Amino acid sequence: MPAKDKMDKTKMVTCTAPVNIAVIKYWGKRNEELILPINSSLSVTLHQDQLKTTTTVAVSRSFQDDRIWLNGKEEDIAHPRLQSCLREIRRLARKRRNDGAAGLDSTGLSHKVHICSVNNFPTAAGLASSAAGFACLVYTLAQVFGVEGELSGIARQGSGSACRSMYGGFVQWIMGNTDDGKDSLAQQVEPETHWPELQILVLVASAERKPVGSTSGMQTSVQTSCLLKHRAESVVPGRMVEMIEAVRKKDFPAFAELTMKDSNQFHATCLDTYPPIFYLNRVSQQVINLVHRYNRHYGETRVAYTFDAGPNAVIFTLRQHVSEFVHVVQHFFPPETNGGDFIKGLPVNHTALSEELKQGIGLEPMPKGVSYIISTKVGPGPCVVEDPSQHLLASDGLPKECV
Amino acid sequence: MPAKDKMDKTKMVTCTAPVNIAVIKYWGKRNEELILPINSSLSVTLHQDQLKTTTTVAVSRSFQDDRIWLNGKEEDIAHPRLQSCLREIRRLARKRRNDGAAGLDSTGLSHKVHICSVNNFPTAAGLASSAAGFACLVYTLAQVFGVEGELSGIARQGSGSACRSMYGGFVQWIMGNTDDGKDSLAQQVEPETHWPELQILVLVASAERKPVGSTSGMQTSVQTSCLLKHRAESVVPGRMVEMIEAVRKKDFPAFAELTMKDSNQFHATCLDTYPPIFYLNRVSQQVINLVHRYNRHYGETRVAYTFDAGPNAVIFTLRQHVSEFVHVVQHFFPPETNGGDFIKGLPVNHTALSEELKQGIGLEPMPKGVSYIISTKVGPGPCVVEDPSQHLLASDGLPKECV
Repeated sequence: MPAKDKMDKTKMVTCTAPVNIAVIKYWGKRNEELILPINSSLSVTLHQDQLKTTTTVAVSRSFQDDRIWLNGKEEDIAHPRLQSCLREIRRLARKRRNDGAAGLDSTGLSHKVHICSVNNFPTAAGLASSAAGFACLVYTLAQVFGVEGELSGIARQGSGSACRSMYGGFVQWIMGNTDDGKDSLAQQVEPETHWPELQILVLVASAERKPVGSTSGMQTSVQTSCLLKHRAESVVPGRMVEMIEAVRKKDFPAFAELTMKDSNQFHATCLDTYPPIFYLNRVSQQVINLVHRYNRHYGETRVAYTFDAGPNAVIFTLRQHVSEFVHVVQHFFPPETNGGDFIKGLPVNHTALSEELKQGIGLEPMPKGVSYIISTKVGPGPCVVEDPSQHLLASDGLPKECV
Repeated sequence: MPAKDKMDKTKMVTCTAPVNIAVIKYWGKRNEELILPINSSLSVTLHQDQLKTTTTVAVSRSFQDDRIWLNGKEEDIAHPRLQSCLREIRRLARKRRNDGAAGLDSTGLSHKVHICSVNNFPTAAGLASSAAGFACLVYTLAQVFGVEGELSGIARQGSGSACRSMYGGFVQWIMGNTDDGKDSLAQQVEPETHWPELQILVLVASAERKPVGSTSGMQTSVQTSCLLKHRAESVVPGRMVEMIEAVRKKDFPAFAELTMKDSNQFHATCLDTYPPIFYLNRVSQQVINLVHRYNRHYGETRVAYTFDAGPNAVIFTLRQHVSEFVHVVQHFFPPETNGGDFIKGLPVNHTALSEELKQGIGLEPMPKGVSYIISTKVGPGPCVVEDPSQHLLASDGLPKECV
C-alpha cells in the first residue's frame, strides 16, 4: 500500500442517543427479520444527562475490516442486526450519491468502519440499552456517511424500540401495514419541551435472577398467548388514540392510568404465554402496591409506574410530587445506607413524611428492595458531540481506553 | 311452653362434602346476587379422606332461632348467602310438600335449624373452603328436609364454586343463559372412578400476606379487565370442549397443558385488573418454573400446576411420577425439618433423585418456600355420615365441643 494512502485522514463522528420507556408497550413481531410489530407503541424519551449511549464511528481507507467495541469489549460485527443497520445506511448513502444529492460527502463509502459505543449507566440497571445503542449507531453512521432524513426505519431493524429513540419528547412507533416495513416508522408526537412538569424516576430493583430476553420472550408470546393477539388487534389501537390525547392535553391522571393499565396488560400477556414469563418480582409487585396506595391516600392519581421486560420500575409524576414520592420509596424500601448514593441524577429536595401518610400507605417495608433511584425528566433525541476530545476512538481507529 | 313440646325429638343429620379445584377457572359474575358466572368452568373433586367439610344440621321445635357455628365459633346466620341457601331449601321442601311428593318428611319445615360445620384442614391451607362448606350445608339441609334432586343451583347461591362440590370426579359448571339462573348448574362429566391413575398434590406455600378476596377481586376484574371479557367470551368456550375431551380420553398431556394454560390465563386477567391483583408470589412462580423444567427434562408433560386465588399450587400427575416429583419439591423447597410432617395424606414412597435430574432442573433451592404437601386423589361427592356418634351437635342442639 503506497504511503500516501496510509496518510489519508480518518473521518470520525461522535453522537449520543437516549433511552426511551414505552407507555403503550411493544410486544410481538409480525416479521422477525424486518422487525415489524403486531401493534403500534408510544414512548417517552428519557433525558441524556442521566441515561445515554455515546458512539463514535470512524471511517478510514486504512481499516481492513468493520469492527465494533461495546462498553470496552470488542464484539462480533457479524451480528445480523448490526449488519442490517450497516447495510441499510450504506445503501441509502449510495442511493443519495447516485441521485447526485447536493453536499453529500461520499468519501469512505467503500471504506471500513470502526465503531465504539459506551453507556453512561450500568447494564445492570436493566434499561433497554439496545434501543439507545442502535439509535446511536444509526444516527452516527448517518452523520459519517452524510445521510439525512428518515432514519427510524433503519434503527428499527437494529432493535424494534430503537426507532423510538431517534426522537426526543413523546414518540409513537406506527406499526405500518406494508410487507416491506417501509411504513413502520417512529414519529414525534410532542417535543421534549411540551410538558416540563413531567418528571421521571427509575427505580432499580434488586433482581434475584436474570429474566427471559425480550426477543425470545415475545416470540413465545406471539406463538402461544391468545390474550396478546386480542390486545394487539382490539385493545392497543384505541389506547394509542387515548394516550396521544392525554399527552397533547398534558392530562396527568389520564396519562398515568393508561400507562399503568398498559404496563399491567403487557405483563398479563407474558403470564398468558406458555410457558409463562415473569418479569415482575416481589419488589416490582410492592412498587405497584405502593403507587396505588399512595394515590389512594390522596384520592387522586399523582404517580404512575411502568415496567419493561425486567423488574425495574419507571415512575412518572409531576414536579411538585417528586420529592415526597422519592422519600416514600426510601421509607418503604430502606436502602443499606441512607447515604446520598440512593438518589442519582437530578437533585431531589429533602421532605419529611407525615405519620398519616406512612400509615395511610400501610405497607411492610422491604429493606434493600430498591438498589437506587435515578431522577430524570423528558429529554431530546440523538445529538452530535462537536468536541473532538470526546471521541471514543483514537486517531489510529482503536478505542482510547479498554475498560 | 308445655313440657311435651320440649320433649319433641330433635332431628339431626351429618354429611361431608369435598373441596374442588378448577382446571378451567371461574372468575367473574354476570349477576352478583344469583351468582351467575360469565363463563363455564370445570373442576376436579378432591378426595375427602384428605380434605373435607363436615356439617351437622339439627331441626327442633325447641330452637328459638336459626344458628350456625363454623370451626367452633358461632357466626352470624344473617349472612345473605347463608340466608339464600336456607330460603331456597325451605322453598323447595314446601313446594314438594304442596306437590304431595311421596315419602317426604315435612316435619320441622316451620322449625328453626342449628348448623355446625368443621373442616379437616386448616383455613391457612388457602383451599377454597367456602365451596366445600356451602356444598355440605346445602346437601345436609336437603337431607334434613327430605329434599331430593338437583341441588347444585342452590349451592351456587352460597358460593359459586360450591355447585361443583356437589358431585365427585370431574365436574362442569355450565354457565347457563337465563336471567333467573335456573340453567346455571353443575354436572358430572366423569365419576371419581374414571381415571384412577390421576394423583393430586396440594403444595401449601408460605404466604407473605393475605391476598385479595375472590368476591371483591372478581368484581374489580369484571369492571376493569378487557382481557377477562375476551377470555370469557372467546377463549373459555373452546377450552371447555377441549378439557372435557381430554378428561374423557384420559389424555394426560392434553389435560395437563390446558390446566396450566388456563391457570396462567386466569392470573393474567388478575394482573390486567385495575388496580392489579397478584395471587402468585415468588414461591408460586418458582413452583411454575420447577414444573416446566421437570417436564422439559423428560421431554414430556408429566406434571401440571394450577393456582386459585392464592399462592398454593395444586399439582396433577400420574401415579408413577408422584413419588419422584414429591422428592423434587422437597429438594428444591427444603423444609425446616426433613421429618415426615412435610408430606401429609396418601403415603408416598421414598425415591432418591439422580444428580442428572437435579442438574437438569437447575434451580436455586428456596428453603421453606413450601410449608407442606397434601397427597390426595380424585374423590366422590357429598356423603351422609350414618354413625350418629359423629354428629357435631349434642342432643341439646349445641356444639359438642367449642374449639
